[in-house]
Amino acid sequence: MTRVVVIGGDAAGMSAAAQASRGAEPVELVVFEKGRFTSFAACGLPYFVGGLVHDSAKLVARTPEQHRANGIDVRIGEEVMSIDIERREVDVRVLEGGRTYREPFDHLVIATGASPIRPPFENIDAHGIFGIQTIPDAVMIDEVIRARSPRRAVVVGGGYIGLEMVEALQLRGLDVTVVEKLDQPMSTLDADMGARVAEGLRALGVDLRLATGVEGFERGADGWVRAVATAAGELPADLVVMGLGVRPNTRLAAEADIRIGPSGGIAVDARMATAVDGVWAAGDCVESFHRVSQRPVSIALGTHANKQGRVVGLNVSGSQARFPGVIGTAVTKVGTVEIGRTGLTEREAASAGFDVVADTIEGTSRAHYYPDGAALSVKVVAERGTGRLLGAQIVGGADAAKRIDALAVAVWNEMSADEFGQLDLGYAPPFSPVWDATLIAARRTGERLR
Amino acid sequence: MTRVVVIGGDAAGMSAAAQASRGAEPVELVVFEKGRFTSFAACGLPYFVGGLVHDSAKLVARTPEQHRANGIDVRIGEEVMSIDIERREVDVRVLEGGRTYREPFDHLVIATGASPIRPPFENIDAHGIFGIQTIPDAVMIDEVIRARSPRRAVVVGGGYIGLEMVEALQLRGLDVTVVEKLDQPMSTLDADMGARVAEGLRALGVDLRLATGVEGFERGADGWVRAVATAAGELPADLVVMGLGVRPNTRLAAEADIRIGPSGGIAVDARMATAVDGVWAAGDCVESFHRVSQRPVSIALGTHANKQGRVVGLNVSGSQARFPGVIGTAVTKVGTVEIGRTGLTEREAASAGFDVVADTIEGTSRAHYYPDGAALSVKVVAERGTGRLLGAQIVGGADAAKRIDALAVAVWNEMSADEFGQLDLGYAPPFSPVWDATLIAARRTGERLR
Repeated sequence: MTRVVVIGGDAAGMSAAAQASRGAEPVELVVFEKGRFTSFAACGLPYFVGGLVHDSAKLVARTPEQHRANGIDVRIGEEVMSIDIERREVDVRVLEGGRTYREPFDHLVIATGASPIRPPFENIDAHGIFGIQTIPDAVMIDEVIRARSPRRAVVVGGGYIGLEMVEALQLRGLDVTVVEKLDQPMSTLDADMGARVAEGLRALGVDLRLATGVEGFERGADGWVRAVATAAGELPADLVVMGLGVRPNTRLAAEADIRIGPSGGIAVDARMATAVDGVWAAGDCVESFHRVSQRPVSIALGTHANKQGRVVGLNVSGSQARFPGVIGTAVTKVGTVEIGRTGLTEREAASAGFDVVADTIEGTSRAHYYPDGAALSVKVVAERGTGRLLGAQIVGGADAAKRIDALAVAVWNEMSADEFGQLDLGYAPPFSPVWDATLIAARRTGERLR
Repeated sequence: MTRVVVIGGDAAGMSAAAQASRGAEPVELVVFEKGRFTSFAACGLPYFVGGLVHDSAKLVARTPEQHRANGIDVRIGEEVMSIDIERREVDVRVLEGGRTYREPFDHLVIATGASPIRPPFENIDAHGIFGIQTIPDAVMIDEVIRARSPRRAVVVGGGYIGLEMVEALQLRGLDVTVVEKLDQPMSTLDADMGARVAEGLRALGVDLRLATGVEGFERGADGWVRAVATAAGELPADLVVMGLGVRPNTRLAAEADIRIGPSGGIAVDARMATAVDGVWAAGDCVESFHRVSQRPVSIALGTHANKQGRVVGLNVSGSQARFPGVIGTAVTKVGTVEIGRTGLTEREAASAGFDVVADTIEGTSRAHYYPDGAALSVKVVAERGTGRLLGAQIVGGADAAKRIDALAVAVWNEMSADEFGQLDLGYAPPFSPVWDATLIAARRTGERLR
């Protein structure tokens, strides 16, 4: 029987294994996971810290035992140390005890994920400075909040994870400062939309320090962090969360001479195959094809990891599947501020060589007379000449973010801004004004094209 | 200067006039409105009755005075009695006093709207039996509820307006019975999805009488309705709302030999032009081209009326615009039950000649571990062979309905079910599971195609 070895038991790896276990052809499945958990929802960690999810076990979609019951040989606490392409074997180390052995494969699936960026700041190893990537990270933050009742938290980095941790820490009653070295939070948005996020954060009571680089940390005599040192002075901190994003884990692949792409992730084709026959990769460790910029990008996101893992699972078990690429859609919320984006920003589109036109409009989430509607801003980016939609961004209150999906489907299909403005979207007073803000933004952008 | 006469001062007529008033070429604009209001939100009436909108004036987007300030000659309380195509004049009657006169036009815009269906049931003219189409209708229902404290309401018809009035009447504290002659509510959904709506309505405490035809009304000695007579017996009622849908107002057009289409609305081309040169029509009185069935349909919906009016306004003032048609997207809610649909149902698709495959899945609105997620059902309808998406339906709790928009854009673009299942939609735990229910439904439908 074909023997499939999977490195990494999280979203991509376990999706691949689960899909392969019910594939057209029977395969033997071995999964190596160096941690204690499988199939856990990294994206759910901030909500555990925030107290919205009470039991960290809820973040585990499927335990090793459940996977084993499906015939998958999951080996927990075992780390793959190297890949021997020649012999088609991996070197495995059993973390408890240190025993090593080799395991053969016909197909190898690399699903090693990504790791938080952790610059070599002075005293970054002080107590109370956390990344937020694994269940133990989240449990540790929760325990520190319970045990030490910290008052002031500093979040380093104003991107997705940073903002989600702002919400979590505010829910736990901490005063939160965000330090961001750029002059806007959410650098995946254009500056004008980033400014709206900044305004929203400040309205939530966040002390937002933009254009402020971190220089290091002050450590107290007890070994705990005391302050964050920046060019603009010290920021007192009882707790620090690093939210500088992640970097694909590619060491194993690179050492086996598997090609790493220009965006820093493992290079794969649409089948999620690496350049080495029978070696596949999926999830946060790979780069994906961006359908609008036509360039490879590294985007760590559970939904891509799941889809890519499924594609690999089908391909190693007798079916054929392709991952069609990404368009950079993302949504998040912090308190009452919702954020959505898809495609390219104005800045990204220009740098990808497009002649760009864009417009931003202010709207509301509901008919003007219907109670509790929220304000929202919609920016639409299109290509001059063709009018093709290149991207969109939304910042607003409740029900703002997921409006990005209609625009995402339009960007995917290369619709024009004009045609989007005429679309038959769902309308009723509790859900949108008679002209939804997304339609108006597209129409206005279309008018600018003429 | 070109003289544009508009018949009807609501969504379509006033959108046409407002757009024309700022057109590329200056035009003279006269609007005849037989009622007292312009640009009022008919879709908002149930929310006024329900007490969510406190002042009926809020339902008026723009008053006659505001339109006049934009140079539009709005004539309130004046009804167009006939159209003289030969002489290019309309006959006008001033309702107060009864004076009549003729008004010439170069372009004529017919925006006469639609009227509620009101079958000749016995005693349908009893006090306490209302349609819900105009601001006076809604004000009257509100006043009757205040003055007479009715206890039991019967809503005749389980479609959009019927269900929105269920919510309104429940909010006002009435016990509500719905009488529907078909064996499901929401006949714009397939039977399996209609059953989910029925279940939701019953969970809200609605007394839902399906497959029950109304035969007439019982009137008390005081002239007020007492009960609704059905084949299955009498239903006591202190208040009755007729929600049997609407029919396009086409008398004026038909009498002027302007072609009425097979769906019952005025026939127009993509420019919203009738077959008569210089005569245009828009809004609830016209039929629209359905892009999936490729057939004309009459759909009374404010969002279409606004878009079509805008197209006419552009076309009569020196620009060129087209209305690209509809795909039958609609959303509504009743209490905690949300409903969305787009494209064709399984039944409609089969009757339009498609070889159909469909699948329905159960999902949730949020990541499984995130609090307060709602259950939702998604049905996807596709064409066997090509896999093309033909339509979709959603029934569920909070945040269910507007998920239809992504599917609507996909149906519009003739995407395949398989491709939809791979789409890059916005994912974060507060907004959806890692595989959104719409993606899973499309994927499963795609799998059934093979």
